[in-house]
Amino acid sequence: MKYYVELIIINKDSVRDPEGETIQKYVIEKYTNNIIETRVGKYIQFKIEANNEEDAKNLIEKIANEGRLYNPIIHKILVRVRRE
Amino acid sequence: MKYYVELIIINKDSVRDPEGETIQKYVIEKYTNNIIETRVGKYIQFKIEANNEEDAKNLIEKIANEGRLYNPIIHKILVRVRRE
Repeated sequence: MKYYVELIIINKDSVRDPEGETIQKYVIEKYTNNIIETRVGKYIQFKIEANNEEDAKNLIEKIANEGRLYNPIIHKILVRVRRE
Repeated sequence: MKYYVELIIINKDSVRDPEGETIQKYVIEKYTNNIIETRVGKYIQFKIEANNEEDAKNLIEKIANEGRLYNPIIHKILVRVRRE
């Protein structure tokens, strides 16, 4: 079956995010004071053929780690799966 | 109430994605042939105070457009809301 797997790579909460801070200060705060924080990350979408959601997710986690798609020292990742 | 709103900015399907193609060719295909396509985008997460999900989403869509957080000629956006 075909799945879409989303890999979101974002700085850990304890790591500063200068791009997010810049958007927050120079764009967001021109419009509203209701946005408390802005954080920027990278989004990678994979279209994948797998037997089930679990396999799809595991393959992406393996490649993200071994293929160094993110740096675990500074980033955290979110992996989400949905059927095509 | 507090919400997290996610703004995902990604090239339209008809627009090439050289970074995605590079990851696909030089990382993914070393591991598997089961990933059909890789597309890269930008992820922005906002922590927002709003009355309801609808308001939260509308505010982010307005700022994304007027504040030029993406380019509607080449990008499409996904906006997702979740409660804190």
